[in-house]
Amino acid sequence: MSRIGFIGLGIMGSPMASHLVKAGHEVTGYTLNTEAYERLSADGGKTAASIAEAVADAEIVITMLPNHPQVEKVVLGEDGVFAHAPAGALLIDFSTIRPESSIAIAETGARAGYRVLDAPVSGGQAGAEQGVLSIMVGGDDADFAAATPIFEAVGKTFIHVGPHGAGQVVKAANQLVVGGTYALVAEAIVLMEALGVDAGKGLDVLAGGLAGSRILELKRTSMVAREFAPGFRIDLHHKDMGIVSDAARQAEVALPVSGLVASLIAAGRAQGYGSLDHSALLKVIENLNGRGA
Amino acid sequence: MSRIGFIGLGIMGSPMASHLVKAGHEVTGYTLNTEAYERLSADGGKTAASIAEAVADAEIVITMLPNHPQVEKVVLGEDGVFAHAPAGALLIDFSTIRPESSIAIAETGARAGYRVLDAPVSGGQAGAEQGVLSIMVGGDDADFAAATPIFEAVGKTFIHVGPHGAGQVVKAANQLVVGGTYALVAEAIVLMEALGVDAGKGLDVLAGGLAGSRILELKRTSMVAREFAPGFRIDLHHKDMGIVSDAARQAEVALPVSGLVASLIAAGRAQGYGSLDHSALLKVIENLNGRGA
Amino acid sequence: MSRIGFIGLGIMGSPMASHLVKAGHEVTGYTLNTEAYERLSADGGKTAASIAEAVADAEIVITMLPNHPQVEKVVLGEDGVFAHAPAGALLIDFSTIRPESSIAIAETGARAGYRVLDAPVSGGQAGAEQGVLSIMVGGDDADFAAATPIFEAVGKTFIHVGPHGAGQVVKAANQLVVGGTYALVAEAIVLMEALGVDAGKGLDVLAGGLAGSRILELKRTSMVAREFAPGFRIDLHHKDMGIVSDAARQAEVALPVSGLVASLIAAGRAQGYGSLDHSALLKVIENLNGRGA
Amino acid sequence: MSRIGFIGLGIMGSPMASHLVKAGHEVTGYTLNTEAYERLSADGGKTAASIAEAVADAEIVITMLPNHPQVEKVVLGEDGVFAHAPAGALLIDFSTIRPESSIAIAETGARAGYRVLDAPVSGGQAGAEQGVLSIMVGGDDADFAAATPIFEAVGKTFIHVGPHGAGQVVKAANQLVVGGTYALVAEAIVLMEALGVDAGKGLDVLAGGLAGSRILELKRTSMVAREFAPGFRIDLHHKDMGIVSDAARQAEVALPVSGLVASLIAAGRAQGYGSLDHSALLKVIENLNGRGA
Repeated sequence: MSRIGFIGLGIMGSPMASHLVKAGHEVTGYTLNTEAYERLSADGGKTAASIAEAVADAEIVITMLPNHPQVEKVVLGEDGVFAHAPAGALLIDFSTIRPESSIAIAETGARAGYRVLDAPVSGGQAGAEQGVLSIMVGGDDADFAAATPIFEAVGKTFIHVGPHGAGQVVKAANQLVVGGTYALVAEAIVLMEALGVDAGKGLDVLAGGLAGSRILELKRTSMVAREFAPGFRIDLHHKDMGIVSDAARQAEVALPVSGLVASLIAAGRAQGYGSLDHSALLKVIENLNGRGA
Repeated sequence: MSRIGFIGLGIMGSPMASHLVKAGHEVTGYTLNTEAYERLSADGGKTAASIAEAVADAEIVITMLPNHPQVEKVVLGEDGVFAHAPAGALLIDFSTIRPESSIAIAETGARAGYRVLDAPVSGGQAGAEQGVLSIMVGGDDADFAAATPIFEAVGKTFIHVGPHGAGQVVKAANQLVVGGTYALVAEAIVLMEALGVDAGKGLDVLAGGLAGSRILELKRTSMVAREFAPGFRIDLHHKDMGIVSDAARQAEVALPVSGLVASLIAAGRAQGYGSLDHSALLKVIENLNGRGA
Repeated sequence: MSRIGFIGLGIMGSPMASHLVKAGHEVTGYTLNTEAYERLSADGGKTAASIAEAVADAEIVITMLPNHPQVEKVVLGEDGVFAHAPAGALLIDFSTIRPESSIAIAETGARAGYRVLDAPVSGGQAGAEQGVLSIMVGGDDADFAAATPIFEAVGKTFIHVGPHGAGQVVKAANQLVVGGTYALVAEAIVLMEALGVDAGKGLDVLAGGLAGSRILELKRTSMVAREFAPGFRIDLHHKDMGIVSDAARQAEVALPVSGLVASLIAAGRAQGYGSLDHSALLKVIENLNGRGA
Repeated sequence: MSRIGFIGLGIMGSPMASHLVKAGHEVTGYTLNTEAYERLSADGGKTAASIAEAVADAEIVITMLPNHPQVEKVVLGEDGVFAHAPAGALLIDFSTIRPESSIAIAETGARAGYRVLDAPVSGGQAGAEQGVLSIMVGGDDADFAAATPIFEAVGKTFIHVGPHGAGQVVKAANQLVVGGTYALVAEAIVLMEALGVDAGKGLDVLAGGLAGSRILELKRTSMVAREFAPGFRIDLHHKDMGIVSDAARQAEVALPVSGLVASLIAAGRAQGYGSLDHSALLKVIENLNGRGA
């Protein structure tokens, strides 16, 4: 069992920290939204008044934060992790950020005597609560091995996909496929409905064949019913498509379909659907066709 | 059991006709490529020297042809089905054609005393050989009921999705989702490889989460290995995206992502990959990025 | 001077016929909307009760019709031009239709002893009224030479761009550039306004540099003021983008940007802007961004 | 006349500095590529061994640098402009960078007692050599007025388009329209050639009508001849499309056509055409269609 400093107890981080406590780890949490401390304390964790306190004697430091500016501030800042954690500590960053930031943090960490893994997750709030996240890990073999008990506590599958930043690259690839699939299903629904076909029945057929997908399985009924309670918000998917775009720019590759999907997700946000589930991309395609309610 | 006239014994039609013979139906086939007669004869079917002969005493006429010009000629032509089949016969058109053609054929048929179903299939050559096609059916309830023994002989799932043309609309929706998913997976592979990540491992993670799809399940290994033996050829998917485009124009809807995917599939054909599997969309994205072999 | 049968006296055809009368030609008009006969009669032209009568002794037959189904019916139909015009007559089709239809009409004409030119125009209603149209001509040299007096009467510039159908191809190229330029200017306006920049001033700069265009010159003020009285209607541009799409399919080329622009124009129509000027593509981009009025 | 410190004597900055000398200003240049010092000295300017020396007694500081990291380092760095220029000096940044960087620099400058204008230019190397650049200026009225003699020395038109950053926004708008116009002309050429039409003649028609543009005027002959000597390199346009993308993200607007054009320009770079003129976007569209040489 490990002593863990856990920074960022949001809707994802909070249940993850609780799973770690229940798995027997000694968890000290720090977060800006101190309401989250109640749950951690109730579950048997400790809380800290600062990052410095949270990581003071940590073997493992975990971060679960919104985007790269927050991670950079928390990890690299004057009062941050690398200023206060014990030498040799392992930083596991579960945040979804751009690959180049993960690489830069790992390089800075190495120079300062810290080991770092990027370990973005998919599975959303439900996956975090149930402890069944998918985890895409970038970094060194030995560090991946050392982190295994942590991954087992919060995830169902976790795969070491490559060196530093590789976890983020795979997460970006995941998000482009997910966003694009919603766009395609949305266009399929609009086409069928515009031609008088029962989209529910139509999607039933699609779900059973080569067009089948996890998204059709989970979301086709709610999409046809126009139920868009999140789930994973358009705002967050918009942020993630920004990471896809940054990664593509860094890699100097052109991804035209992903780019168009990113535009449509940005449009969803601009149209005021940022707090709806990402399946609300259907509303963007509907509005484009003057078919919105 | 029914007397069936079967027009079009290509790589799909030939095994479908054999399944019908084996199910006990009396099948008389007609096709332009007479090599296919051997198999039908061997299986116990009959062959005809003309459409007129094939449909002369048919209760059910089946067509399985490349595209709407062929269907229109075979069904509506001077020497065609509606000129020679017995009044009241049921035409089941398994071809994938544009919805407006299916509707026009059904309307012409109704005036001439014929019942018509549009019943495009998915599942490809393998699905036809194994008799496990998915069938999307448009037309009247009674005709769907009457056709059930036929569908059971060649398919695993068959769903009545709406009135005349609705089967084609659902097939178009299916093909846009399938083509788009290949494009997304291709972009994911190119992004991961450009950033030094093992795309095989990356796709393993994607396949297990919200990005998961039947295409990732069946094709991710062959795509990463650049194995593009068909399967379903780019040329055919290009034809089908033309149907999507025609259907969208008829419906007066804008489908931007489908349109871009159609461009990429057209590019695949223009680049000389028409005879490769549609997963070869990966080569289009690679070439766009100067990464082709 | 020539005896001319002129079929199609709409907002374009009517002033064109009048220019021909004024240039000294003997014009007999036929149209479905007989209100147009008043102007032609007042200008000194004759009117006919049928196509047959209009073309009975014509040296030159002119058609100016909405799209290929109308042209095909008027020219190839039982009561059409090729059934009634004198052998050797020259058909000049000013309509904008798909290249393959123009080629088919020219081939049918040749077999029946008629000479044919496709001669789509740009310049709109204003250009037709002022007799300053641009004319893109496909067909044989001798026929182009023979048609010169006609072109001089209705146009300012007329160029023989290639064989049968070539005029339509150039018109399609023209319409894709025009539609695309509107889309780009629309995105430029939305970007500038979203960031608090005076789009009028910004477009003034653009108009004076490498981004300058006839569209910026003519339309930037009205676009910034959101004045969208036609001009050339979105509905017509939508039809023309269908021709671009058909031409690209025939040529087996992928035109991704044109395809996306076609989607946006289709969206404009679907959103109810079909009767506005094509510069109203700005409203589509605004609505996409939740910025519409 | 003013004492000017001029940082960045590249292919744009070098002729601009010379024009300022010839207009009677006292110019002290600093640049990394010291070969440029020869020209400046020959024209009567002075050179400095450091930024500090270049700006030591400057009334006006000019920067003309590749992108925002260079500008930020030169202006904000420890040894930079704001550390060494006299209080009250006016910084004119002619570089093309993202609007938010220009705004941040202006805000930092204001706190440190400096006045700042963002003043990106268009017109390329030829425009710089001839002193006929177009200049888009963001900042305060009084500073714009103070900078007028500078703008007159290097440009033909200069417009004050709004507050800090507005110059960059207009430049981004300019670059999206320019890049998109090249893409449209490229698609027009490929369509015409694929259908056997003489693209040169076709573009002549387009250039004379509503599709006409400065790009068609200047570049249609070289594009049809496949002459792609720069001019303005694809690499630089790629950088500028990154600014468009950043600006759109900052503004939270979706610009789908610009996004697709950015993908095609990125593809041009990935295909190895980074050093060709941006009109080489034609090669990207050709290669997409398997028509490249």
